[in-house]
Amino acid sequence: MTSVSAEPRWLEPDEMRAWRAYVIASELLRQQLNRELQEKHGLALPDYEVLVRLSEREGWQMRMSQLAGQLASSKSRLSHQISRLEKAGFVRRLNCAEDARGVVAELTPKGMDMLRTAAPVHVQGVREHLVDLMSPAEQEVVAGLFERVIEHLDLT
Amino acid sequence: MTSVSAEPRWLEPDEMRAWRAYVIASELLRQQLNRELQEKHGLALPDYEVLVRLSEREGWQMRMSQLAGQLASSKSRLSHQISRLEKAGFVRRLNCAEDARGVVAELTPKGMDMLRTAAPVHVQGVREHLVDLMSPAEQEVVAGLFERVIEHLDLT
Repeated sequence: MTSVSAEPRWLEPDEMRAWRAYVIASELLRQQLNRELQEKHGLALPDYEVLVRLSEREGWQMRMSQLAGQLASSKSRLSHQISRLEKAGFVRRLNCAEDARGVVAELTPKGMDMLRTAAPVHVQGVREHLVDLMSPAEQEVVAGLFERVIEHLDLT
Repeated sequence: MTSVSAEPRWLEPDEMRAWRAYVIASELLRQQLNRELQEKHGLALPDYEVLVRLSEREGWQMRMSQLAGQLASSKSRLSHQISRLEKAGFVRRLNCAEDARGVVAELTPKGMDMLRTAAPVHVQGVREHLVDLMSPAEQEVVAGLFERVIEHLDLT
């Protein structure tokens, strides 16, 4: 019997319980955080995440390719998203001075204002719906496990 | 100072580490599992999840409202999704015999065939990219934590 035709290793009950809980909870959490930002600030969660990443950088700038990597987004999806954020006046696109191929996204002062306004709502949601539900020991497990997942998926 | 104007409780470094790892890993994982199903079976991950839920039920049927709850989906989003799955021949919609308001989604034999074909690919991805990266102790933490999150979010 080759490994291709072999019966897959189906999940054991304990594995299934962990996987199901994780999958449902992540979807509920994503929707809840998105809803809170949309209702209070008209901002989608993925857009909020773009503003955060740019705000953390020197000069509020980042190469589009690097930003796509950090957000686990495809280049074409990010490009559409940045176009929307440009129209809203939160971000602008520049050509990279050192590299003719590179395009850089830059947070505008208006984008920074939006981020400062929206951040307290978002962090309150993140606390209320996840972080404050974790013990310090659980935090440590979550950090270690998901860093391992990131390392594994970045290499595949 | 009222609680409304109070400075939000920003995340501490350990909390931020856990949150960041979780957010990035979930997004990478969702994309990877979706890509694998799309490439090998032309099926999106949320569609796969609909087929799974129906297949687990007596008569392969479930009320649309109940299905929406189990998938953490809105009724309108699920309705669009079921329309696509109906066109593909994987699902059909029926009126509920006991309840004039209820609409029921039913898995077709063609849908069950698709599920049987796609399931080994999906379970292999779930194992490789998450489950096999967890120790039994981590599984227990993940199950307990995310069940708590589900309970919390179902009530908000």
